[in-house]
Amino acid sequence: MKKMISQATIDRLPLYFRTLRLFEDEKIPIISSDELGRRLDITPEQIRKDLATFGQFGRKGIGYDVHDLKEKLANILGLHKHWRLAIVGVGHLGGALANYVNFASLGFSVVALLDINKKVVGTQVNGIKVADVTRLNEIVAKDEVDIGVITVPAQEAQGVADLLVASGVKGIWNFAPTKLNVPATIPLINEDLSIGLSALSYYMTQE
Amino acid sequence: MKKMISQATIDRLPLYFRTLRLFEDEKIPIISSDELGRRLDITPEQIRKDLATFGQFGRKGIGYDVHDLKEKLANILGLHKHWRLAIVGVGHLGGALANYVNFASLGFSVVALLDINKKVVGTQVNGIKVADVTRLNEIVAKDEVDIGVITVPAQEAQGVADLLVASGVKGIWNFAPTKLNVPATIPLINEDLSIGLSALSYYMTQE
Repeated sequence: MKKMISQATIDRLPLYFRTLRLFEDEKIPIISSDELGRRLDITPEQIRKDLATFGQFGRKGIGYDVHDLKEKLANILGLHKHWRLAIVGVGHLGGALANYVNFASLGFSVVALLDINKKVVGTQVNGIKVADVTRLNEIVAKDEVDIGVITVPAQEAQGVADLLVASGVKGIWNFAPTKLNVPATIPLINEDLSIGLSALSYYMTQE
Repeated sequence: MKKMISQATIDRLPLYFRTLRLFEDEKIPIISSDELGRRLDITPEQIRKDLATFGQFGRKGIGYDVHDLKEKLANILGLHKHWRLAIVGVGHLGGALANYVNFASLGFSVVALLDINKKVVGTQVNGIKVADVTRLNEIVAKDEVDIGVITVPAQEAQGVADLLVASGVKGIWNFAPTKLNVPATIPLINEDLSIGLSALSYYMTQE
């Protein structure tokens, strides 16, 4: 299933997933796109269009089966796979990510932390001992790491990306503000915290 | 200028801005949408469409004036306004944001840190002393805070949002994984670090 699906649509799927999980907790069996939209401030038309991209889920005039749609979204997003993360660069941001509770609730777990700084190596963050980055290959194999998270300074990021690719990770999540070159077979997501802040600035400027 | 412009378009503007700034540093006076697209892995058609939303910037067959377009994007995004941020909740994530260098490069500055925890109040993070959250009103006025950043646990986030609105901030950037109610006059951006991770999971699942 390789279709061109917009990034914006893919970014909305975890929101739908989490809201459906809340509905399930509230013992609500069926919901309409109107109700889902109200919870999320997204138009029902947008929700129906997004979901239709992946198949025929709801029933006209009835709505979506909450459990069923939640499970299907989890499958589409690969959330059942319990991906294992290694964070390279245990500074402020790496430390924050190691403690970020939302990941666990979506089935991701941080299993390894690595740093180059001798003062950081050997310390514990959220119960995980920080290892020396020279041990990356060994740790990716031993801890069955799927995803490498890059939270080092920009000038070190490409080097870390190369090490991660060589170590056999299946995907890279990059927080360093630089464009990385990785093989096309390794999915790469670049995260930039200043995008949201710039969007806020935009809306504040329109007021 | 209140038009319906998609979030995806607004999210791409800071990428264009930063890339233009790099071109300017490299003393490149004119660039085409092809060159800009190559740097960013975005199609030239998408770039032309995004920019056309805001006016007639480039010249057909010639390209965009780098300095001119960069300044226009800064104006559209409000980056000349030098917004001042207060971070409420100085845990791991709040501490990481207080140290995040990308903000300063876009003209944002963190001017205040607040927390409820007596052990954290009075400590210094990146040269800023953490104040008690009960002093929020006073600090927003004295430090001319524009943007309140919420990095407290989900169950405390609405209370903090109410305090921020009452204190007179002009916008809210929320990292707590919960939907906040704020007046429609206060722009609100909800940040969720697990969205990018879920997108990565999606792409890894399609491999």
